[in-house]
Amino acid sequence: MTTNKAWTLAAYLSGGLPGGENFKLVESPARAPAAGEVLVRNIWLSLDPYMIGRMIQQKSYTKGVELGEVMTGEAVGEVVESKHPDFAPGEKVVGITGWQLYPTAKGELFTKIDASADVPLSYYLGCLGMPGRTAYFGLNEVGKPKAGETLVVSAASGAVGSVVGQLAKIAGCRVVGIAGGKQKCDYVTGELGFDACVDYKAGNLHRDLKEACPKGIDIYFDNVGGETLDTVLRLVNVFARIVICGRISGYYAAEPYGIKNMGSVLVNRVRMQGIIVFDWADRYAEANSALAGHLAQGRLKTRESVAEGIESAPAAFLSMLKGGNFGKQLVKLA
Amino acid sequence: MTTNKAWTLAAYLSGGLPGGENFKLVESPARAPAAGEVLVRNIWLSLDPYMIGRMIQQKSYTKGVELGEVMTGEAVGEVVESKHPDFAPGEKVVGITGWQLYPTAKGELFTKIDASADVPLSYYLGCLGMPGRTAYFGLNEVGKPKAGETLVVSAASGAVGSVVGQLAKIAGCRVVGIAGGKQKCDYVTGELGFDACVDYKAGNLHRDLKEACPKGIDIYFDNVGGETLDTVLRLVNVFARIVICGRISGYYAAEPYGIKNMGSVLVNRVRMQGIIVFDWADRYAEANSALAGHLAQGRLKTRESVAEGIESAPAAFLSMLKGGNFGKQLVKLA
Repeated sequence: MTTNKAWTLAAYLSGGLPGGENFKLVESPARAPAAGEVLVRNIWLSLDPYMIGRMIQQKSYTKGVELGEVMTGEAVGEVVESKHPDFAPGEKVVGITGWQLYPTAKGELFTKIDASADVPLSYYLGCLGMPGRTAYFGLNEVGKPKAGETLVVSAASGAVGSVVGQLAKIAGCRVVGIAGGKQKCDYVTGELGFDACVDYKAGNLHRDLKEACPKGIDIYFDNVGGETLDTVLRLVNVFARIVICGRISGYYAAEPYGIKNMGSVLVNRVRMQGIIVFDWADRYAEANSALAGHLAQGRLKTRESVAEGIESAPAAFLSMLKGGNFGKQLVKLA
Repeated sequence: MTTNKAWTLAAYLSGGLPGGENFKLVESPARAPAAGEVLVRNIWLSLDPYMIGRMIQQKSYTKGVELGEVMTGEAVGEVVESKHPDFAPGEKVVGITGWQLYPTAKGELFTKIDASADVPLSYYLGCLGMPGRTAYFGLNEVGKPKAGETLVVSAASGAVGSVVGQLAKIAGCRVVGIAGGKQKCDYVTGELGFDACVDYKAGNLHRDLKEACPKGIDIYFDNVGGETLDTVLRLVNVFARIVICGRISGYYAAEPYGIKNMGSVLVNRVRMQGIIVFDWADRYAEANSALAGHLAQGRLKTRESVAEGIESAPAAFLSMLKGGNFGKQLVKLA
């Protein structure tokens, strides 16, 4: 009998970063699928900053994880046993099945991966998955890049930021990243082809960003919020667009950071908009096709941080929230 | 010979509210018009919160007033002498001619007022003027009201806020004002027909606003910024729109207020946009026609605070910035 291992939520988060006390690893026999269900062996688990929002007992854009429930998350796996007509053993699938080895769930929860595509499976959790689609819709639908404009993106070496910047380069923008540390900045300019990258850890964000954006900032794709957003507001041009996609900086702070430069939103007629990729669910195929095309043509590079084994998930998650990852954070489950 | 009196900027403002030291009244002979120019006797001067932005030596959405220059402002007047083919003595005009009695300027600076309309001249500085157009475009182009939605507007009894709320009622919204004091709130609900009005001076803004908006807030038309905006962010619905039109609260504070609830922008996919009415200059006729229509049909009520004489302008301006006005703030010049 196959044994499932699953990380469950042991305690709600009440501000600050999660620790060992928030998670509990539970072992149980994998459940045989009922009619319409599929049993999957997960291979890759995606860890993403949004998950912290699900650990808090408050209103968020989707239902949070309940105490004792399996931590939410997207994974790529292989069908082991199927009681659903559309799935057969051996097929590769992606689904939001959580931090566990052997999920059993309705077939409708899974999307089949085209086995003929010559793409690593893990990419369906990164540049060809939710982060890639988030970048695609946030940039195109809210950022609306025009050739010659300057785009700034924070968490630039991360799963979403790296795609945002590369898509903006394809659109003809001057692209400036913000990342933590020289190594990440070098990767962003050297490998990903951004025009510049500012190391926020160097402590001169305003000065360095101003220097990197001599014509001001037309689009800011914000993955971090807080002081970085406030600093960008001092440098935006008239009619700038700000895509509010994440606020990882908000997860650290005991007290929420107060944005002081809202006057710039008025003076510069800035449009600032929060986005969640689910809102474009009916257009995922369009994004998938565009992203796969760019990848095939070598215009979309990606990098992964891999933690080994289901046991490592909480530590890898915490490390990512602190910026310890370098590229898309994954857990290799099998 | 006619003597002009003009308030000039004597000292830049460096935070906080203006005082007597910022203004200087200058007398000089009215200047006879050169070719293409018109000499006007101003009758009504408009005082508006935006003027404070022109008194600061920093980037704003238009050029600031220089030291020694006449304070900027819109006025309604009568042509005294014309060297411009389109204008004749006796005609009523509106133009941004500043805080003065007898401006002489190019004819192109003025717009003629239809003398056949049975409307008080001062309305062309209020509900039929820049404030009315600001309300019209901000509400329709950014707020995009739908019947059944809840709209909140701050400075609800003011020149812009009162029009916003009445237009939103016409659009079928539940309309909730925010104003200072019982008298203004009673006017907003009793005279203007808003569904509710919250007195921010009562000190329970969040609780009172929540009670007045049982279905949450779909549109917030923000004339004040600061803590009020921050409080509204705690109550907005998914896909809410926030029109950033003014930030009068920011003019008081020595330190800018920090907006803490930006997380709501992400979670609720809020669209927040700064607006300046100039950006719709090519569509003013559309707004004028719509507003005049509502006025004629008795669906647009308005109220004015009138200060007497050019000498009173600085004190009336300061009083308005502190909320001492009740309706559109005007100075009667003649």
